[in-house]
Amino acid sequence: MLKVIAQDFIHPDRLPDVAPLYRELVEKTKQEPLCISYDLFVDQKDPGHFVFIEEWPDRAALDAHCATEHFTRLVPLINAHQRKAATFILMETFK
Amino acid sequence: MLKVIAQDFIHPDRLPDVAPLYRELVEKTKQEPLCISYDLFVDQKDPGHFVFIEEWPDRAALDAHCATEHFTRLVPLINAHQRKAATFILMETFK
Repeated sequence: MLKVIAQDFIHPDRLPDVAPLYRELVEKTKQEPLCISYDLFVDQKDPGHFVFIEEWPDRAALDAHCATEHFTRLVPLINAHQRKAATFILMETFK
Repeated sequence: MLKVIAQDFIHPDRLPDVAPLYRELVEKTKQEPLCISYDLFVDQKDPGHFVFIEEWPDRAALDAHCATEHFTRLVPLINAHQRKAATFILMETFK
């Protein structure tokens, strides 16, 4: 199992532009057959700080997600509105 | 619903010291009646970077968690091994 936290930092005046892109990205990613969970949250202290919490069976499934039509189309459109680069944490369950 | 990401940064030579403390903290927190989920992960690139992903019904439930015997006893013991201060993100579901 692979847990992922992906964090986007969007210009505060661009939130109306990114909202429909995020909605489509979440909706289509949840339909991927290998997606275990893919949920998007917003920092209470920063409405431009978007946090994906994802679960995939393995790294190959994450790589397949990053190669989908919806990912490769929507992520560059979202990133055009970012105020700084996204960050990613790939994690294993603590045992 | 309140989603929380709490991140601890532990000295790499102290992992054997913190592991049993984390195990007890997770086990006892999952038994709290208001806890929806409380899972601990480790960064694949940094074995001293511990990431809690938590879900609580509301802020009052999180505050009650932070006042429990197990939290107030174990967290200072864990923090004695940290290499830098913990970080916290409180989030709402994106809609």
